[in-house]
Amino acid sequence: MSSNVQIDIKEIITNQAMMAKKASQKLATLSSLEKNKALLTMAHALEVKTPIILEENNIDMENGRQKGLSASLLDRLLLTTERIAQMADGLRQIANLNDPVGNGIMSCRRPNGLDIRCIRVPLGLVGIVYEARPNVTADAIGLCLKSGNAVILRGGSEAIHSNKILASILAEAAYSAGIPHGAIQFVSITEHEAVDVMMRLNKYVDVIIPRGGAGLIKRVVENSSVPVIETGVGICHVFVDEFADLELATKIILNAKTSRPAVCNAIETVLIDQKIANEYLPMICQKLSEAKVEIRGCEKCLAICPELKTATKEDWSTEYGDLIISIKIVENIDEAISHINTYGSGHSEAIITTNYNNALKFQKLVDASAVYVNASTRFTDGNEFGFGAEIGISTQKLHARGPMGLEALTTMKYLIYGEGQIR
Amino acid sequence: MSSNVQIDIKEIITNQAMMAKKASQKLATLSSLEKNKALLTMAHALEVKTPIILEENNIDMENGRQKGLSASLLDRLLLTTERIAQMADGLRQIANLNDPVGNGIMSCRRPNGLDIRCIRVPLGLVGIVYEARPNVTADAIGLCLKSGNAVILRGGSEAIHSNKILASILAEAAYSAGIPHGAIQFVSITEHEAVDVMMRLNKYVDVIIPRGGAGLIKRVVENSSVPVIETGVGICHVFVDEFADLELATKIILNAKTSRPAVCNAIETVLIDQKIANEYLPMICQKLSEAKVEIRGCEKCLAICPELKTATKEDWSTEYGDLIISIKIVENIDEAISHINTYGSGHSEAIITTNYNNALKFQKLVDASAVYVNASTRFTDGNEFGFGAEIGISTQKLHARGPMGLEALTTMKYLIYGEGQIR
Repeated sequence: MSSNVQIDIKEIITNQAMMAKKASQKLATLSSLEKNKALLTMAHALEVKTPIILEENNIDMENGRQKGLSASLLDRLLLTTERIAQMADGLRQIANLNDPVGNGIMSCRRPNGLDIRCIRVPLGLVGIVYEARPNVTADAIGLCLKSGNAVILRGGSEAIHSNKILASILAEAAYSAGIPHGAIQFVSITEHEAVDVMMRLNKYVDVIIPRGGAGLIKRVVENSSVPVIETGVGICHVFVDEFADLELATKIILNAKTSRPAVCNAIETVLIDQKIANEYLPMICQKLSEAKVEIRGCEKCLAICPELKTATKEDWSTEYGDLIISIKIVENIDEAISHINTYGSGHSEAIITTNYNNALKFQKLVDASAVYVNASTRFTDGNEFGFGAEIGISTQKLHARGPMGLEALTTMKYLIYGEGQIR
Repeated sequence: MSSNVQIDIKEIITNQAMMAKKASQKLATLSSLEKNKALLTMAHALEVKTPIILEENNIDMENGRQKGLSASLLDRLLLTTERIAQMADGLRQIANLNDPVGNGIMSCRRPNGLDIRCIRVPLGLVGIVYEARPNVTADAIGLCLKSGNAVILRGGSEAIHSNKILASILAEAAYSAGIPHGAIQFVSITEHEAVDVMMRLNKYVDVIIPRGGAGLIKRVVENSSVPVIETGVGICHVFVDEFADLELATKIILNAKTSRPAVCNAIETVLIDQKIANEYLPMICQKLSEAKVEIRGCEKCLAICPELKTATKEDWSTEYGDLIISIKIVENIDEAISHINTYGSGHSEAIITTNYNNALKFQKLVDASAVYVNASTRFTDGNEFGFGAEIGISTQKLHARGPMGLEALTTMKYLIYGEGQIR
C-alpha cells in the first residue's frame, strides 16, 4: 500500500473519531427518556428496512461462499428476517435497562465544608473492533448509546456490506430521534491499517473493546495505546474434588462442555482428584463419549482408561471451542488450583465438592472473574448475572472483570461544591 | 548494548515478576491484621536503619552533584532523618486505613437460586515505574501491601542507591513479619530496557502505574501492553464567569497557582468572561504580579493590559509547573468549556460563579476527573478527598479517575454459590 493511501486512512478515521468525540459531549447530557426514544426508533427502523438489509447481507454471503468460508462462519454471517427482528428486540431490551449515568458512587462533606459527590458519567467515545457477526453492530451501538457514549465501530471485511447498512440505518434513525449528529461512526475501511489507526487515537477514543477471536484480541492488547478492555478468551475448568457429589459433577460437566461448546464460558478441561479418579474417570468418560465429546487425558488418566487420546502440554492452554475436552488427574485441591492459575484465562472456574473448607479455599485462591461452587460455568453472562445485555466478558482485572453491563461503559466524575475554600 | 545483556535484563526482571506473582497469591489471602503488623514492622525498620539509608542517599547526592542536577532535583533526592521519619509515619498511616479487600460490591439471589456475591480482591502484581523521589518507594510498597498486592518497582537512576536500600530494608522487615517471600521486588537495573521489559510482562504484571514527568508517562502509555493507569499530568483551569464574586475568584486563583506551583492540581490557565474582563483583568494581573507570577495573555488581554507577555497557542497546552500563568478572555461560558475540553488534561477544573445554571452547566459539560464550583483545584488529592494516602491521580477514564486510594488497587471477583444449577 502506498503511503498516500495510508495517510488517507488515517485522516478519514481521525476525522470520524473527532466528530464522534464532539458529539459525545452533548450525548453525555441527554436524559434516559431521550436515549430510550432513540433506541425504540432505531428498533423500528431495522424492522421497516429489513428488505434492504437482507439484500446487502446477500452480497456478503455470496462473497463468503466464493471465498470458501466454512459453514459455521457463513451461518454467523447470515441475516434473516427473524434475526433482524431479534436485533430490534435487543434494542428494545436495552431501552428497558436502567441507565447508570448520573448514579451516585459516593457523596460526603469534608471537614472544611466542601461537599463532594462522585457520579457515574459516560466514558466518552468507545471503539469497538469486531469480526464476523453483524448483530454486534446493533448490540454495541445500542449499549453505547444507552450509556451516553459515542461509538466508532470497525467490523470485519466478511460482513462489511451488512454492517455498513445496519450502521447507517441505525445512525439515521438515532439522529432523527434527537441523538447528536456524528455520535455513531462506522469505519468502512477493511484494510488492517484501519485498526492500527484506531488503536493510536488516544486524543479521541477513550477505550477500545475488541470482540472476536484470540488473534484479534492479542493484536489489539499488544499494540493499542488507547486503553483496552480485554474480552472473551475462555479456558475454563471444572475441578471434581475428592468430596464431590459425583452425579452432580457429571451433570455440571456435561452442561458446561456440551450445551454450547463454542462460547467462552464453556469448559475445556476437567481436573479430578486422584483419590476418586479410579471410580470417577471411567464414569465421566462414558458420559462424555455418549455426548460425542473427544477426550484427551493426562498420563495418569491413560493408566486408568487406556483407550483415551493423550493430552499434550499444549492441550492445557487450548480453547477448543468444540466438542473436545482434556482431563487431568491432580494430587489434591492445591494442584488443581495451581493448574488453573497457570493455564486458565481468568474467566470462569468451578469446584464440585460437599466440603466447606475446600469450597472456600477454591473461591479464595483461584484467580478468575467468576468462581463457582457446584454450578456450571455457563452462567457467566450479563443476562444470567442480572445485568441485562452485555458488551462482552472482561478477562482482565482493570476497570471491569467478568460480564460487562452498562456500568462498565461508564467512568466517574467528582463534583465539588465550594464556598470559596482554598488550601 | 549487546543482545546477551538484553537477554539477561529480560530474564532477571521476568524472574522477579514471576516470584512476585507467585507471592501475590498468598498475599491476597492475608488478613488486615497480618498486613498491618507488617506495615508497623516496616515503619520501625526504617527508623532503626536511618544511618545506613542516609549513607546510601549520600552516594546518590554526590553523584547527582557531579552530574550537575538542578537544586530542585537534588532537594527531591535528599533524605534526612526527618524525611525518613515521615516515610515511617506514612506507613503507620497506611496501617490505619480501612482495608478494601473482601468488601462487598454487590450480592443477589438469581431466579434459579444461584447466590452471586461480588467482592473486592487485590489486583495481583502492581508495577510502579517512577523517577527521582525516593519516598515513592516506601509509599508505593505500603499501599500495595495494604491492598494485598505484590509490587515490582523500578525507580530512576538518580535515586538508585537510596531506593535499593529502602526497598531491601522494607522487604526484609515485611518478610520477617509474615509477608510471603518475594512479594516486594525492586528492579535495580537502571537501563531503559528495564522499563521496556516490565511493560510487556502481561503474564505476570496486572497493571503498570507510571509516576513522574510527562515524558515517562507518555512512553509507558504508548508502549505498554500491560494495562496502564495514566497519572499526573495536570493542565487545570479556573474560569471566572460573568457572574463571579471577583474577590472570591482572586483568592482561589492565587491559591490554585501559587500555593504549590509544581504539583499537578495547580492551575496553568485562567479564563475570563469578556463581559467582566475590563474590570477584572487588571485586578487579577496586579495580584498575580505581586505574587511574582509571570503572566502570558491572549490578544484580547493585551488590548486591556498591554504590558503582559503574549501567550502563544503552545501556552494553552503547557504544564508550567512554575510561577507562570496564561490568561485568556473568552466570549462566554460555552467558549470556556470548549477551551477546557480541548486543552485540559482531564484533571481538575473550576468555575467561579454565583449563577446556578452556569455552575450546573460547567459541571455537566466539562470533561475532567474533578469539577469545582467556587473552590480551589488544589483539593484534588487523596487526603483532601478523605481516602487517606494515594498512589497517584488518574487522568484517564478507565478503572480509576481522580485521586486513587486503596480501592483503585483492587479488582473484583464474582463468587457463585450453587446447588447443582446448570444452564
